[in-house]
Amino acid sequence: MAPKKIVIDCDPGIDDALALALAHGSPALEIVGVTTVGGNVSLDRTTDNALRLREFLGFPEVPVTPGAAGAMLRGTIEAARVHGTGGLGGAVLPEATLPVAPGHASDYLIETLRADPGEITLVAIGPLTNIALAVLKEPRIVDWVREFAILGGTYTRGNRTPAAEFNIAADPEAAAIVFRAGWTVTQIGLDVSTTAQATGPVVERMRALGRLGADLLVPCATFYGMVTASDGPAIHDACALAYLADPTLIEFESAWVEVETAGRFTSGMTVVDFDLGDRVPNARVGTSIDVARFWELTLSAYERVNQGLGSGI
Amino acid sequence: MAPKKIVIDCDPGIDDALALALAHGSPALEIVGVTTVGGNVSLDRTTDNALRLREFLGFPEVPVTPGAAGAMLRGTIEAARVHGTGGLGGAVLPEATLPVAPGHASDYLIETLRADPGEITLVAIGPLTNIALAVLKEPRIVDWVREFAILGGTYTRGNRTPAAEFNIAADPEAAAIVFRAGWTVTQIGLDVSTTAQATGPVVERMRALGRLGADLLVPCATFYGMVTASDGPAIHDACALAYLADPTLIEFESAWVEVETAGRFTSGMTVVDFDLGDRVPNARVGTSIDVARFWELTLSAYERVNQGLGSGI
Amino acid sequence: MAPKKIVIDCDPGIDDALALALAHGSPALEIVGVTTVGGNVSLDRTTDNALRLREFLGFPEVPVTPGAAGAMLRGTIEAARVHGTGGLGGAVLPEATLPVAPGHASDYLIETLRADPGEITLVAIGPLTNIALAVLKEPRIVDWVREFAILGGTYTRGNRTPAAEFNIAADPEAAAIVFRAGWTVTQIGLDVSTTAQATGPVVERMRALGRLGADLLVPCATFYGMVTASDGPAIHDACALAYLADPTLIEFESAWVEVETAGRFTSGMTVVDFDLGDRVPNARVGTSIDVARFWELTLSAYERVNQGLGSGI
Amino acid sequence: MAPKKIVIDCDPGIDDALALALAHGSPALEIVGVTTVGGNVSLDRTTDNALRLREFLGFPEVPVTPGAAGAMLRGTIEAARVHGTGGLGGAVLPEATLPVAPGHASDYLIETLRADPGEITLVAIGPLTNIALAVLKEPRIVDWVREFAILGGTYTRGNRTPAAEFNIAADPEAAAIVFRAGWTVTQIGLDVSTTAQATGPVVERMRALGRLGADLLVPCATFYGMVTASDGPAIHDACALAYLADPTLIEFESAWVEVETAGRFTSGMTVVDFDLGDRVPNARVGTSIDVARFWELTLSAYERVNQGLGSGI
Ligand SMILES: [Ca+2]
Ligand SMILES: [Ca+2]
Ligand SMILES: [Ca+2]
Ligand SMILES: [Ca+2]
Repeated sequence: MAPKKIVIDCDPGIDDALALALAHGSPALEIVGVTTVGGNVSLDRTTDNALRLREFLGFPEVPVTPGAAGAMLRGTIEAARVHGTGGLGGAVLPEATLPVAPGHASDYLIETLRADPGEITLVAIGPLTNIALAVLKEPRIVDWVREFAILGGTYTRGNRTPAAEFNIAADPEAAAIVFRAGWTVTQIGLDVSTTAQATGPVVERMRALGRLGADLLVPCATFYGMVTASDGPAIHDACALAYLADPTLIEFESAWVEVETAGRFTSGMTVVDFDLGDRVPNARVGTSIDVARFWELTLSAYERVNQGLGSGI
Repeated sequence: MAPKKIVIDCDPGIDDALALALAHGSPALEIVGVTTVGGNVSLDRTTDNALRLREFLGFPEVPVTPGAAGAMLRGTIEAARVHGTGGLGGAVLPEATLPVAPGHASDYLIETLRADPGEITLVAIGPLTNIALAVLKEPRIVDWVREFAILGGTYTRGNRTPAAEFNIAADPEAAAIVFRAGWTVTQIGLDVSTTAQATGPVVERMRALGRLGADLLVPCATFYGMVTASDGPAIHDACALAYLADPTLIEFESAWVEVETAGRFTSGMTVVDFDLGDRVPNARVGTSIDVARFWELTLSAYERVNQGLGSGI
Repeated sequence: MAPKKIVIDCDPGIDDALALALAHGSPALEIVGVTTVGGNVSLDRTTDNALRLREFLGFPEVPVTPGAAGAMLRGTIEAARVHGTGGLGGAVLPEATLPVAPGHASDYLIETLRADPGEITLVAIGPLTNIALAVLKEPRIVDWVREFAILGGTYTRGNRTPAAEFNIAADPEAAAIVFRAGWTVTQIGLDVSTTAQATGPVVERMRALGRLGADLLVPCATFYGMVTASDGPAIHDACALAYLADPTLIEFESAWVEVETAGRFTSGMTVVDFDLGDRVPNARVGTSIDVARFWELTLSAYERVNQGLGSGI
Repeated sequence: MAPKKIVIDCDPGIDDALALALAHGSPALEIVGVTTVGGNVSLDRTTDNALRLREFLGFPEVPVTPGAAGAMLRGTIEAARVHGTGGLGGAVLPEATLPVAPGHASDYLIETLRADPGEITLVAIGPLTNIALAVLKEPRIVDWVREFAILGGTYTRGNRTPAAEFNIAADPEAAAIVFRAGWTVTQIGLDVSTTAQATGPVVERMRALGRLGADLLVPCATFYGMVTASDGPAIHDACALAYLADPTLIEFESAWVEVETAGRFTSGMTVVDFDLGDRVPNARVGTSIDVARFWELTLSAYERVNQGLGSGI
């Protein structure tokens, strides 16, 4: 079976880096494009990180197209405390030699989906600003996309605030636009991702993965682990990519999701109603993940990436 | 040790009825007053139910004082679907023969707390309208009360909406006033109460409790169970009274709680922040309950009530 | 014709002082009670000012009952910059010798209206907290009152914010409760009151009014004038009392008024819809005032007060 | 002096039609582009109307580029009741023979401003969706534009709601984005435009303008007049174009403008604060218009258009 063609909208970001590595190493996935958005750190940094990761991980032929620098309507919130000043925690990758692609991420998304209707899977693992701009400019992308998945939101507890997850809280209006666009969003949120922790044994297996382990995986996982003050950090964004590689990893339930944009204490919350009544669901919301199989898939992808380092994969 | 003196602000309501029975039967508690509020059903019904319960359960000397008929600022929401038209599900108790006490619940609360500072525990198991009115008129009650506990709110999922629990959603402004009043609210919410289900074996033990079982407990539990479409209904309000009878039943964590009043989809949500930073907590939030011991305490209290039926206790 | 019996809920406050003087001096009005609320300055100051004004102006038999210290739900906003630290600008009145009446303003309002249904006019010239508490505790006061008038709100521009007038902005939830209480509020707002300026000639006529002019009117008007940076300050609160003394002074239009409580930039705005459609109006909104006749009535009342100073009126 | 190059973003719409006629007939203005947005009627209708107007009025060489079909975040509100089903009231213009330009309005705006920095004036006389999309995708347009003017908002009373003007209320989030984009918006709102009424004598002068009068001006003005139930309709959008033709027509005051997006009753309100304090103004807000000179300029432009009808101008 041909690998699934995916476009990754991201804001690397530690867990974005680990998600890109997973995607590149998975035989089930083919990265056809990367777009960047301001989020965990500034757009300049997320784009530079995406360029460095592209060359370090070994997919130099894939275009990287930058998009929105910040939220549509609100001041930017960053997470440099969580991701380090550079955005990749303790990892320092070589400078990139290849440039970004011309144009704006939102146009890249529209053109790529238009060119290959029904074939491209879009996954967003940062704030949803680029996706919102694309859907506003070309509403038909919701029909052209094969599947649209996000890492974002929560139906229980947030991490940016008690109510809101970072990717949604970083641009609530964009998220509201995206959930109302007329497609069924595959929403993988904190409820799922926080259970997929990089425990001690997992980090040990990362450490065994040569240059990939030494230069990227371990510095990322340990910095993240230290900062979030848990001995087993959750690698949120990787969950969305793992799901695309193997959809059986995660259980879902259909729901109607609204994004709160007006609350005093709840802006950026995904209000997930599993009681659909007469409504056609606008989301499939992840409720659990098979953690053991997630790490097998992920570490196996990382091994494949490591083998390819220096020679292409 | 002398029993704890409690005033119960309630809106019976099936689970309020089961909570009143628990309170009356518990040797650790002494009901010194009951106040009523519109909520599960209209104030007329909740007051009439409180009067009937007082005589049926056997504490005719305790004053019942009615208060607010509805939310401070919003249209009233009712839950007659959940509690039956009369508010007590399938239970039909004899008409009351004794009248309500004169005056307004909020004044009763103020006067009772003022008269016995440090001695009275106040527990609210309905919308917080009466408590808000009391605290607005006499802010010093927060110093006079021994403890203030509520059944209400959630830090994960709501039941009235995906975000909000019924008692808070029924009057968000009142709840916001109450949480900002300067005391430490003992908040027992859905996170705790939904785990205390009246399973089949529990209902069987209720059925064995003579007239109390036949006329009140079983009709309440089974109606509630049917309507909420779960084979083991949660008896929310009873959890707050059980906690007062035995504070070791529930685990708590300190938090800062805000009540959302401005959201489009989140009004009435208790936004619970366990990450206090420099803030002095305004709530102790229940996180788990010892379900087995809860039912032992509760059923033992019910047995004591049943023994007293017809003869006083 | 017997004078109209009025109860004045106020937060003196410079313009409250000038309004009380007007009310006391008008043969068409009889002050039967004064209640105080925190607002322009703290409740302690507004109450102390009301007590001093009562004795200085000469109505010592009228009870002064304090009420709410601040807004129901929000932090208190004050206007000490506008009204001076003491609340009466440059005026320094003798200390009061008589105490406040016992009880809470909201109860005083309820009892007074209950005792004389259809006979008492209630006028509020401060934040609406006391009125909201009264109406929440005893909704029937809307039927018992003869008329309920306020100085507050605007249908064009605010003064506390571009959208909101001070009295409403100081407690938006209270105002929302009051406008939804089921009566027809006589709303006299900034649209009217800002046109009734104490111009130079008016202040000259105040100066001619002996001790009243020297000790109260002129110090108030000139302090206010300086601070609000207009050479002719508007004496807002006095407009509501002048209207009660002579209802022909002000033109009105029926409207449906909502109070915004959720906006980011508009909280405390009175949203006045003159296009009623099928709605029964909840307000008569003042649209213009006969300024010349307003000052004739007001100055003539002041003259009567001055004549009575030291000897009763 | 060379005429001012302008791009008009519009939603024709009766007053848009009269504004386009004014712009085309004014020797001070040169229309270089027209973009369309959904608003008064659907995007299909506004675009079709723009195409018909282009040929009827005689500027076939100017590109017409369609943009957003509706508000970014909210359901579309239309004003077909006000503008007629077709959007031009009683006017029926010949079908257009020339097509729209390719691409999206927001890209047209970006490219046009980028190509000629400092030379192009942008005027928006419909909902601000296209402008918001342009500014989000290319924030530098705020530096490239010569001036950005809108017909929209109010600092006193709205027309869509008591608080909000139609163009802003139709897409509050877009307007909020536009006002925060970092430029100084020339805001001409209802406060100005409602005073520029097409009175009886004005309509008579329109009637004298041959085919333009008979086929466009009079049917528009009279339909509008009937529907808005005033004998002299305000031709809102034309005011913004008249201002560009002769900036001395309108008086302005600097202000800080926020757009309310969260209110229950105030969404889409432009909250205009003339009291800037330390803030650099984000808007110059029109406060009055010289109505007589406005009509002279406008009717003179219309005369010029009429002379050109059938032969180009
Ligand atoms: Ca990310
Ligand atoms: Ca209850
Ligand atoms: Ca006042
Ligand atoms: Ca228009």
